Formats: sequence, structure tokens, C-alpha cells
Amino acid sequence: MVFGNFGDDSGTGVCFSRDPSTGINKFYGEYLMNAQGEDVVAGIRTPEKIATLEKKNKKVYDQLVAIKDRLENHFKDMQDLEFTVQQGELFILQTRSGKRAGAAAVKCAVDMVAEKLITKEEAILRVSPDHLDQLLHPMIDPKAFKTAKALTKGLNASPGAACGRIVFTAKDAEEWNAKGEKVVLVRKDTSPEDIGGMVVSEGILTSTGGMTSHAAVVARGMGTPCVAGAKGVSVQGKKVVIGGTSFKEGDWITIDGSTGNVYGEKLSLIVPSISKDMSLFLSWCDEVRDASVRGDITGFKVRTNADQPEDVKRAFDFGADGVGLCRTEHMFFEKEKLIHFRAMILADNIDERKAALKKILPLQKKDFFGIFKAMNGRPVTIRLLDPPLHEFVPHTKAEIAEVAAHLNVSVKDLQPKIDRLHESNPMLGHRGCRLAVTYPEIYDMQVEAIALAAVDCLKKKIPVHPEIMIPIVCDERELAMIRPNAETIIKNVMTKAKVEIPVRIGTMIEVPRAALLADKIAEYADFFSFGTNDLTQMTFAFSRDDVASFMPSYLEKNILEVDPFKSIDEEGVGMLIDIAVKKGRGMKGDFKVGICGEHGGDPQTIDFCYRAGLSYVSCSPFRVPLARLAGAQAVIRNASAKK
Amino acid sequence: MVFGNFGDDSGTGVCFSRDPSTGINKFYGEYLMNAQGEDVVAGIRTPEKIATLEKKNKKVYDQLVAIKDRLENHFKDMQDLEFTVQQGELFILQTRSGKRAGAAAVKCAVDMVAEKLITKEEAILRVSPDHLDQLLHPMIDPKAFKTAKALTKGLNASPGAACGRIVFTAKDAEEWNAKGEKVVLVRKDTSPEDIGGMVVSEGILTSTGGMTSHAAVVARGMGTPCVAGAKGVSVQGKKVVIGGTSFKEGDWITIDGSTGNVYGEKLSLIVPSISKDMSLFLSWCDEVRDASVRGDITGFKVRTNADQPEDVKRAFDFGADGVGLCRTEHMFFEKEKLIHFRAMILADNIDERKAALKKILPLQKKDFFGIFKAMNGRPVTIRLLDPPLHEFVPHTKAEIAEVAAHLNVSVKDLQPKIDRLHESNPMLGHRGCRLAVTYPEIYDMQVEAIALAAVDCLKKKIPVHPEIMIPIVCDERELAMIRPNAETIIKNVMTKAKVEIPVRIGTMIEVPRAALLADKIAEYADFFSFGTNDLTQMTFAFSRDDVASFMPSYLEKNILEVDPFKSIDEEGVGMLIDIAVKKGRGMKGDFKVGICGEHGGDPQTIDFCYRAGLSYVSCSPFRVPLARLAGAQAVIRNASAKK
Repeated sequence: MVFGNFGDDSGTGVCFSRDPSTGINKFYGEYLMNAQGEDVVAGIRTPEKIATLEKKNKKVYDQLVAIKDRLENHFKDMQDLEFTVQQGELFILQTRSGKRAGAAAVKCAVDMVAEKLITKEEAILRVSPDHLDQLLHPMIDPKAFKTAKALTKGLNASPGAACGRIVFTAKDAEEWNAKGEKVVLVRKDTSPEDIGGMVVSEGILTSTGGMTSHAAVVARGMGTPCVAGAKGVSVQGKKVVIGGTSFKEGDWITIDGSTGNVYGEKLSLIVPSISKDMSLFLSWCDEVRDASVRGDITGFKVRTNADQPEDVKRAFDFGADGVGLCRTEHMFFEKEKLIHFRAMILADNIDERKAALKKILPLQKKDFFGIFKAMNGRPVTIRLLDPPLHEFVPHTKAEIAEVAAHLNVSVKDLQPKIDRLHESNPMLGHRGCRLAVTYPEIYDMQVEAIALAAVDCLKKKIPVHPEIMIPIVCDERELAMIRPNAETIIKNVMTKAKVEIPVRIGTMIEVPRAALLADKIAEYADFFSFGTNDLTQMTFAFSRDDVASFMPSYLEKNILEVDPFKSIDEEGVGMLIDIAVKKGRGMKGDFKVGICGEHGGDPQTIDFCYRAGLSYVSCSPFRVPLARLAGAQAVIRNASAKK
Repeated sequence: MVFGNFGDDSGTGVCFSRDPSTGINKFYGEYLMNAQGEDVVAGIRTPEKIATLEKKNKKVYDQLVAIKDRLENHFKDMQDLEFTVQQGELFILQTRSGKRAGAAAVKCAVDMVAEKLITKEEAILRVSPDHLDQLLHPMIDPKAFKTAKALTKGLNASPGAACGRIVFTAKDAEEWNAKGEKVVLVRKDTSPEDIGGMVVSEGILTSTGGMTSHAAVVARGMGTPCVAGAKGVSVQGKKVVIGGTSFKEGDWITIDGSTGNVYGEKLSLIVPSISKDMSLFLSWCDEVRDASVRGDITGFKVRTNADQPEDVKRAFDFGADGVGLCRTEHMFFEKEKLIHFRAMILADNIDERKAALKKILPLQKKDFFGIFKAMNGRPVTIRLLDPPLHEFVPHTKAEIAEVAAHLNVSVKDLQPKIDRLHESNPMLGHRGCRLAVTYPEIYDMQVEAIALAAVDCLKKKIPVHPEIMIPIVCDERELAMIRPNAETIIKNVMTKAKVEIPVRIGTMIEVPRAALLADKIAEYADFFSFGTNDLTQMTFAFSRDDVASFMPSYLEKNILEVDPFKSIDEEGVGMLIDIAVKKGRGMKGDFKVGICGEHGGDPQTIDFCYRAGLSYVSCSPFRVPLARLAGAQAVIRNASAKK
């Protein structure tokens, strides 16, 4: 055979047995006649749609359709074919499973099950978690995408695209938002006090910080697109230079948290939703997970990490089986509560502290009620106060003055108290249940608020399933002290209300010592939940907030294959998890064990969690569908690995 | 029998078969005639020495001597007897082993072996580590002690008494010292930059910080008495109020680091030395440890943690078998090196960094030479740079200006570089071998300095046995990268000098992950040394610098029985050590494994280390004799436990 352009009865083409963008079962492809050899690859001529071939050469077209059908039937998957036509004769050059977009992957999988081409299990393995991820976040309209040019690129810290006006402070974000404007918060970095502004922003762009910076973690939790650590972004006061171009407050910007790209203009976005096909597809995933059996453990659930009723509702709609982690500290950053919380931590004595806590109690109760209601009877695991107190102290002069006025003391007298809360290594400091050992009244208030909210639900006929989780446990005697205290408070509330709602009390396993001594700790816990963010920090001695200075070298020099804050380190952290599961379950047969670190939304980690025997994974609301799929894939993959 | 005062032929006494203060084998005691009943206990009359009884009532005296001899022979220990004489007839009311001072304990033990009353093993168990500790530090003259009144009490952070003039800054300490004055450094707390002043101070008194504060840790390391966290001390500028009394610079003060007492006056001290008896006694301890066999491991050595030639010399004199931990970072705080080190960490690029390192190289080499010489051929384990770089950054305006001038940049340009080194949790940050991954040239310089110093020793016919230790390892690939680099540098130095000195390269096990994966790490390490300070921090998620806010509650509420930074936590941290020893030894039979955390000087921990199969413990120079004893006791105790 001689190559080259033989004339109009010769040509080349590429086709797909189904549409690779949408998955619709319609023959799709392009071809070019008088175009064998270089011309096809060079792309200097515009190819024709495959449909026109039917008119131009029906014989070849019919042959091609018959062959693509046969191949798809044989390989039981959408085929990507290359063919050539030489002087009227068809040659198939190559066939392989076709690459497809997220929507196409789901559509093909669902259709092929309906066509009895593949089983549900096969369908589940055909869709990758990345496929679903594409479908769960807003994206830049491909048409706009073609002409737009990115000014710079940062880390793809939280997926999805966002478009809005630039604001530089959380306060400005709230003000523009109140006027009905969409905003993108642009900052050097963010801190817990920016929460209010982050919530109302379409997207977040930071010039420093890594994949686990405050901005990145919070944005992922909220499902807000975020580009972090964009070195080409330089914020100075209320101006920002992005890749050499200057912008001011109110200018339009578009960020793509899936790629890390930053655009200096308003681009149109496509907002996705869960399609009927995806809903059906995910129900198969649930069936597979629910039917899975590992020893005494039946099923493999997906919960969510969410702290606000609206986030919980979203996760519920996305199919979460419950809340795996409701952090109570974010609630304290709300303006209304913050002043009382600050008064509490700066109190001079237990009476002052209790007085401040009394003011927080009804506000926390309201939060919990909203969350219970949004989960409508599915389990909600509430973690009691976890972070070091200094995270809540006032920083600016104005804030300090406000707190001093509230406490009726001078700024001069207040400052030493603030200074006293400073810690050298807050991650390893006075936090979590350690606060309950020194100041039991804080957890007492939180437990009472949970019990009261549960009672309120019951009275309003809303089903409720609360679980309380104690963080940063390192010794069983911490639980032995805290648990009876909590039980007494719950009992008092229930007795007074004349109801009975079971409240299980469990613990985080996030300190290496707790994993090592899990058998002893299990005696005082109704369940475990692995806090793999902290467990990874302690096991590696890596501070999440500080790894940016050396993690790139570690990955580049192949000392670590993957950032252990992204996918669980099975070798080290995984060994501790294995030890803890075995020791915990050794005490109590079907003891419930889950994971609530950020890893819970990572497909590779979900596979590990299934193998490790965990009862559920928990992840941010936007990753729930992805986890439902990844969990089902883990079940199928590991079942066939056993065979 | 009727009690009461019967007359001059009746009386009561207390006696010791040997002198309980000195241990001298001479009958010792007091008695009081016409003094049965209340008078003896009431202490209203002054008793007479036992020797006078011989004159007054020889019969009774001879009976008493015969009985005390019989009892001592029977119980094979110094006896504390209570007796009464009723109308000339002797009654022994009670006998028991007598409590004795440190000196007496050693003297009795040595004498009784000579008298063939007890075996060497029994003698070793008769002396407690506390007994030795008493004898190894200066103490307040008991005569002075009787009249002196403590103004306040802090933590007994580093044992021994110190007397000197009050100074408030490290610089003042050096200046007064240069004038030949003895000083006690009084501060709120200390930081690494105070090292110079701490070295020349007789003692250190701080108003804040716990047993593991910088002041306490460094003072123990240097054998300098220290009272830390004395709440009754309030430093304001160059004045201090101690328990209500004001003092200024130059005023005399005495502190007792063994009790925590602070005295506002000059008290006379007794300075101890190792007696002939103690020297003999400790040689028996060495025999027992050297002869001990656990599986493949023969002997149980005692090394020292020391960074300065004079400290190493002291430890050598105290019987250390080698240096278990020579920290190289303290060396950098010396004025001469600090400016170059600061230039290095603030360098803009590798060339600037290398230029600064080149200036440090000869200075480090000199340090290492001095240490090798002081150890005279015994193994010296040098740990490469461990702490986060920010510990070295200039803080004060003057320091920043000095560095800026040295680097020939403006303060304004320098400040952002300093800020960039800030870390949220430096303990879990960019430190140890992580620095070698990002800036290999730092360790390269240190390894070259070690090799050059070893060559110098050999040329001067000083025997030398260097070992290099890599800190903060969490993955074997760190070692796989760093080790060949170090080997090449050593080889180049040796080849050039035409000598061959074996240099073993090992690693710290101080990160939980390293303990869990010790089998893999052992492939690249010639030895392990447990850094139990850090291992305890990571395993508990306790920051040593921050535990003061909750540790008292943990101990008081009995959640922890003992501060895990004082005695090793056998349950949790010990489990990791056991895992690491087993996994490490699994790879290489008699693989050398030691401990170099501060725990290495704690008797309870030393017993654990013996049981865990460690080859040696390492502790501060002043605790070496104590560890020689505690190690021998561990050998004997565990041998008899097995029987």
C-alpha cells in the first residue's frame, strides 16, 4: 500500500461509536477525503462530519457502521476507531475504548446497562471519580474558554469555576454581596475570621498557601472554587497585580479552581446539576456499597463533613448517609457568638466563664437544631470544641477594644490575658479534650445544647440521631472523665423533657497514642472516627500549615510519591489505622469506625478505608456523589481481587 | 510494764549500726535517761551521744553493741534501732534498715562488700539513683541551711545549689563574669540566644516555664542549677521582686535547683566530687552492665549528651562510654558563627548560601576536633542540624540591622525574608533532614567538617570514633538520598588525606512514622537513636513548650500518672520503641540502638530501655554516674525478675 493523497475516493477519519461529549448513542466522527498521509495529522484542512459520508459513499458508511457496532459489542465499550478509505475500500486502522467527558461516561454506563451490554458492576467501574467531579462543579463555558487567556496559574485548591467582582476583605465581600453583587475574594491568605466573607464569595483566590492552607481547606468544605498560592498574584492594599495586569476592587475576574487558572475578565459559566442518569447510576453505587460484607460489617456508608444547615441539606440532597463531622468551632466565629466566646476564653474565673457560656448555649442549640433537621433522622456526629483557644482571641486594636469594653476591663489589663494564650506549637497545644480537662464547663455547655436541640426536634416530630465525638484523645482516662459528665447532662435534659433519645458518645482517633492504645480507649467509646488530617500531621511530624516550604522538594525528589494530606499514607498512617481498627474491634464486635479527615473524599483513600474495614467515609458535601462511586468501586475491586 | 520516767537507770534511745550521714562503720546514736514515755518524743531535753552510755552503763552498752552487730549481720544492712532501758534492763523496741544520706549509702555499700556481708549486686541495689544525685551537685551548707529562709519556691528544674549576683541579661552575665564575679541569671524565660550568658552563670532562675522549658532543658544539659517557673518571682526591667522583696542587678541570691527554693542572700555551698568509694562502687556497676547479655546484645552502655569540649570532658571523667548526642545547633549560637549562619539562612540563592557555609566550616571543624579529643577514641555521635531555621533569625532591631549590614542589604529588604521563615508549628515544620532535602549544602558542610576534624585527630595521634546521625527522618527515602551524599564527601576527604577512618551513619527515631517503618529505615542506617523528647511530643501530640497549661490538671486528675517528658510513657511511646527495635533488629542482628532524649537520665526510663533491648542510654554529663548505677540496677532487677 502506498500512502499519499489518492483522490476523492480515498480518505481518513476518526470516529466514536457514541458521542464522547454527551454519551448519546449516536455514531460520531470526522473524516477527510483526498487526505491520507500528512494532511490528517497536520490539521490544515477542516474535516467533515461522519454523517455526510453516508451521502457521499453509502457503501463505505454502512460498512463502517456495521464494524463499529460489532466492535462495541465485542469490547462492550464505546470505541474510538481510526479508519482509512483507499480507492473506495475501507480499512480499520485501530480501535480502542474511547476517552469521554464526565457526562458521557455516566450516560454510556447507564445506557449500556439498559442495553444489557454490561452489568451494573461493570458500569460502576467505567465511570471514574474524576468524571463525576467534572459534573459537580460549575465550569467555564467551553465557548468562552476557547478565546480566554489565563493571566496566571495557582494551585487548583477547590474545584469549579467562579466569576465575580474583586474584593479584598471579608467585610467588603459581605457588603458587595448585600448589594446583590457576585464577588471573588482576593487575599494573601485567609484566617478563621474571614469565614463570613468566604461564605458569601463565589470563589477565593490567594497568593500564598498550599493545598491545605486555611483558604483551600475551608473552600473545599464549602464547595467554593478556590485557587490558592498563585505566585503571580500580588495583593497590595486594595489593589492586586495578576500576571502583570493591575486590578482594583469591583473589577471582574474569573477563577477556575479545577485547573488553577485565573482570568482577568467575566467569563460565562455552566452550572451543573445531578441528572436523572447520574441519580440512577449513583443508586447502583449505593446498592453495591450497602450489600457489601466484610466480616461483621455490612455496608460501607458515605457521610459528610458539614457545619451549617445549608451545607448539611446539600449533602443530604447529594445522598449523604449522615454527618460524619460537624465542627462546632466554625459556629463560634459568627459575630453574634464570637464576642461571648471571647469573653469566655478571657474570663478570670469559672463563674465569669459560665456566665459567657450561658449566653452561647441557646445559639449553639439553634445551630444543632438546624443541622438535625437538615439530616432528617440520619446520624449526625458533632465534634466538641477542638482548636486551641488562641484561635479565637482578638487581634486588631479595634477587636481588642471591643472585647475589653464588653468585659468592662481596660485594654492594658486584657492584653496579658491574650498573650497568655499564645502557644509555640498550637497544633500540639491546649486543645480538644484537653480543654475539657482544664475547663469542663465548655463541653458541658455543648453537650447540653446538643441534648436540648434533640429534644426540640422530637417535640416537633423531626427524627433525630445525635452522636457526640470527643477530639484529641490520647489516653482512655480522658474519656473516662469526660464521658460520665456528658451522660449526666444528657440524662438531666431528657428527664426534664420526659423523653428518651439515645446519644452515642465516641472519640476521634487522631493522636498516634490513641491509635496504639485503641483497645483501652474503645472501652469508653461507642465509636471511633479517624481524624486523618491530625493523624497525618503527628505521624509524619508535618505541620499542614508549614509543609509548603519542603513538600514540593519531597514530591519532586520522589521521597514521597503523593502529598500525604491528599491521599492517605497507607504505609505509616495506614498502619496506625489498621492497628486501631483491630484493637477497637477486638473489644467490640461491630464497633462503628469511620474517617472524617479531608482524606475521606479521596478515591484512593476510600479504597484503603474499605480494605481497612471502616464502616463509613465522610467528606465535604460536594464530594459526596464522588465518594458514593469510589466506595462502590472499592467494594467491587476488592471483591474481585479476593477471587 | 508501766511507762513513765523511772529514774536514772531507765531511759530510751535511737541508734544506727553505722553513721547514717557518712556511712562510717561506727556505732551512732542518742539516748536520754530518766526519759521513757513522752519526754523522748517531745524533744524538750537534749539527748546524749551513745558513746557516753559506755561510761555510764557499760553492761547495757555492751549488750546494745552485741545486739546491733547481730541484727546488722542478720539483716545484712545498716540498722536503725529503738531501745529502752528499764531499771538497768535493755529492751529492743524496734529495728529496721536505716535511712541514710547519699554519701552513707555509697560508703555502707562499699564497706559491706569488703566485709563480705553482701555481694556487689546487693550493694548496687542498696544505693538509689537519688542518693548519687545528691552527691553530684553543689548543695547549700547544712549549717547555713538551718537559718536561711526561702523567699519563694519554683520548680526544681536542674539540681544543685548556686550562689551569685543577680543579672538580668545574658550580656550582663558575660560582663560580670568577665570581671570575675559569680552570677545568677534571673529572667522571665530564656531563649537560644541567651546560651552565652547561661554558660557563664552559676545558676538560672526563671519566673515562667516548666520542667521542659528552654532554661530547664539547657541548664540540666550543662549541669547548671536551675529553678524555673517560680511564680513568686516578677522581673521588671533590671529589677526583680522575689516573694515580696525587691532586688536589683548585683544583689546576692542563692537558688537550690534540687528543692526549687530561692534565698535572698549569699549562702555557703558544699561542692562535691567523686570519692574513691563512689569510683569503686560505680566500677562494679560498669562490670554488671558490661557483662549483661540480652540475646545478641552484650553490655548496656552509658553515653552522654554534650555539645562542648568541656562538657564532653566532664562526662568522660564521670565515666561516659561515649557521646550519644552532640547537637550541632548550639554551636551556631556562638557569636562568631551566628552572623554567618544568619547570612546562610537568609541567602537568596545557593551560591550565597555556600559562601556563608564556607565561613562556618573551619569553625565547626574546630568544635568537632575538641569534642573528639575530649572523648579520646570513644564513639561520638554527632547529630546534623535539627531545629527549624527560624530559631536562628535575628529578632531585635539591632540584630536585624547587623545582619542587613553584613549582607549588604537594607533592613526593609531583609524583613520579608525573616518573615518568610516564620512557621505556625515549628516543631512540625521545616527542620532536621527536611533542611537537607531542600538545602543539601548545609549537611554537606557539616559532614565535611566532621571528616576533616577526624583526619586532624588521626594526624595528631588522637584516637577518634565519629558517628553521624540524621534527625527527623520519617521515610527511608530521606536517608537513601542523604546517606550516599555524606559517604561521598567523607570518602573525598579521606582520600585526599590518604587515611581511612570508618564513619558510621545512623538516624534518629523520633517521628512516629519512622518507628512504624523502622525495618525499611534500617536498610539505610548503621544505628538508631531514639529521640524520645520529640517522639513523646508527636505520639501524645503534646508540645513540650505548651504543656504547662494543661499538664498540671492531667497529673492532678490522675489522667497521667507521671509527666511523660520526665519518665518515658511505656504504654504508648514505649510501644513505638518496641516496634522500632524489633523491626530494626529484624533487619540487622546486633544493630546498635540507643536513646538520646532527656529520658536517658531517668532511672525508670533506663530500666525500660534495658528491657526494650537498647544498647545504651545517653544523658547529660552530670547524670552519667546516676545512669551507670540505674543501668546496673536494671540489669540485676530484670535478671532476678526472669528467674
